[in-house]
Amino acid sequence: MTVDSFHTSGTSPAFLPQRCRVAILGFGTVGSAIASRLAGPDPVDGLELTHILDRRAPVKRNALERHGSRAGAIHWTTRFDDVLASDVDVIVEAIGGLEPAADWIRAALAAGKSVVTANKQVIAQCGPSLLALAARQGRQLRFEAAVGGAMPIVRAIGDGLAGDRISRIDAILNGTTNAVLSRMEATHCSLDDALEDARLRGLAEADPSADLDGDDAAAKLAILCALGFQLRVSPARIETRTTARIQPEDFREASLRGGTIRQIAYADYDRERSSLTVWVAPVFVGRTSLFARTIGPQNAAIVTGAYAGDMTITGTGAGGEATAVAAIGDLVAIARDHAAIVPAPILTEPKEIRGLVDHKLAEAV
Amino acid sequence: MTVDSFHTSGTSPAFLPQRCRVAILGFGTVGSAIASRLAGPDPVDGLELTHILDRRAPVKRNALERHGSRAGAIHWTTRFDDVLASDVDVIVEAIGGLEPAADWIRAALAAGKSVVTANKQVIAQCGPSLLALAARQGRQLRFEAAVGGAMPIVRAIGDGLAGDRISRIDAILNGTTNAVLSRMEATHCSLDDALEDARLRGLAEADPSADLDGDDAAAKLAILCALGFQLRVSPARIETRTTARIQPEDFREASLRGGTIRQIAYADYDRERSSLTVWVAPVFVGRTSLFARTIGPQNAAIVTGAYAGDMTITGTGAGGEATAVAAIGDLVAIARDHAAIVPAPILTEPKEIRGLVDHKLAEAV
Repeated sequence: MTVDSFHTSGTSPAFLPQRCRVAILGFGTVGSAIASRLAGPDPVDGLELTHILDRRAPVKRNALERHGSRAGAIHWTTRFDDVLASDVDVIVEAIGGLEPAADWIRAALAAGKSVVTANKQVIAQCGPSLLALAARQGRQLRFEAAVGGAMPIVRAIGDGLAGDRISRIDAILNGTTNAVLSRMEATHCSLDDALEDARLRGLAEADPSADLDGDDAAAKLAILCALGFQLRVSPARIETRTTARIQPEDFREASLRGGTIRQIAYADYDRERSSLTVWVAPVFVGRTSLFARTIGPQNAAIVTGAYAGDMTITGTGAGGEATAVAAIGDLVAIARDHAAIVPAPILTEPKEIRGLVDHKLAEAV
Repeated sequence: MTVDSFHTSGTSPAFLPQRCRVAILGFGTVGSAIASRLAGPDPVDGLELTHILDRRAPVKRNALERHGSRAGAIHWTTRFDDVLASDVDVIVEAIGGLEPAADWIRAALAAGKSVVTANKQVIAQCGPSLLALAARQGRQLRFEAAVGGAMPIVRAIGDGLAGDRISRIDAILNGTTNAVLSRMEATHCSLDDALEDARLRGLAEADPSADLDGDDAAAKLAILCALGFQLRVSPARIETRTTARIQPEDFREASLRGGTIRQIAYADYDRERSSLTVWVAPVFVGRTSLFARTIGPQNAAIVTGAYAGDMTITGTGAGGEATAVAAIGDLVAIARDHAAIVPAPILTEPKEIRGLVDHKLAEAV
């Protein structure tokens, strides 16, 4: 029997509470933020952090033990097999990159563990097959943290708007690039200076090229196309234009036109023609638009449905704490309902994929 | 075995598809919108509408059959016992009001049906006990449609932000009142004229007093306090100030101060002191605020968490089609996973409940 304390009512406990044992793979920005929450002074009911895997486990262990009040009982390891052979219920994959992450997720599901991941590359490339594996195993693969940081857009599109016919997704999905662009806008500084500022705030990595070039947002957009349109779209087929060459002059020009510049991820699906228009690029946005008002590491999305019109959502899109909120939400969902089914969508290929060329927003900078 | 076509993957069908049989109680604005979707030209995979209950079934039956291409196979009835004795899997309660709705939901769960409801009064008053009953029965009670129309705030707070510590909810939760206020703002008309306009657009009922007085928003806010703060708050304990006496002059004055007027539902929880500040009232909002930009029947919410900061969400908050999107999303969730657990939260009473008096927004109009 599964199920936790969230699910018992005061007068009529339907199930016995049971703790959910958690392992974290990777003690970088995201992994350490999750660990600090679970082993810190404000822990989450029902979740017990028991294992952490990191290549530099001996060094990093000391860092957590300085912070975490309950960090002493955690088993640190450098070997994935130790985690696989353990009695953990859920493995949080926070190592990033395609391999070995995808292999480890597959092995974890095969070993009967549920998995929570923040890895957009793995979900964009291998999501459907991993979700199908999870279903066969009677386990869960959850990935709210892979898109939008703490902005719960995976649930909003996959569950909340499942009763609509979604036709368009228009979004800021890369918090790093948004922090850079909104800083350039506010201070008239160069892109390099804005990047340095973002690094100091923990919002940019040493190599931000995947953020600026649009590859990060394209992977996230591919995930949203699967959830919202039931379309299989390889991130490589999404046209991207880099933000790395944006200059202070571009902002001056945009300001004269009554707006500013943001990296937008756009997908518009014409179901009848099976034609998908999809791109990621820095474009002009009007001063009063939702996107112009999105500053710093925030993410934002406008999701258009045939029946309910526009739904908008915003939230903190970058940084360890925001991503940890999304991952811990997924852990709570698994602890609440160990047997829940996370559906593997049946995806089709669009007949046609178009890029930025003939779109009204092609007035790109 | 349960589970539907959403869950089978192209290469590895883990389960056999199975249709989910649906009954709708009440063929008013919401019930008829759901029926039109399920029996219309763009049906939802996996959902089959088999029963409709309405006091005036013979008359209303003709209305649906004029629209619905698949309406012929639906069993119409005026007797709840017919629905209870049928083989439907899920009952959608769309009759509104506390009784007999709460009794019928209880009876449906006891008879082994899952339930989807748009009824904020029932969930605000009886939600925890009904959720506990559903859990004991191994069935689901879902209520996304009870708060925010098509804005998926129940999932955003209950699931998406379950990994944060939510401290504040600041929202527009009544689409009717927002349509009235934003029309007064735009056209300088009287409240009565704005109400008449809202009625013509299908956004206000003959008696809009529950909307204007704040009782509707208070019930929704009580539900969000349970989901976000794990607090039991009777809607009757939420201070409300009516919007019914707002005059065109109030808008002129607000405009001079650089803003406008909206009916705001506010809840701020100080966990350490167990002190909840909670109210619904028409208040001044700044011109550039999210709330001033929320016009017509839109709903909007800013949810503040200790770890991820602000999450905002907006969407269509009134009208049959928007509410139908939320209810159908819940039906899809049940069809995907018949055995899913919708947790009955363990609620506590706050030590102190405060109203509008000493709040910074007490600069109410």
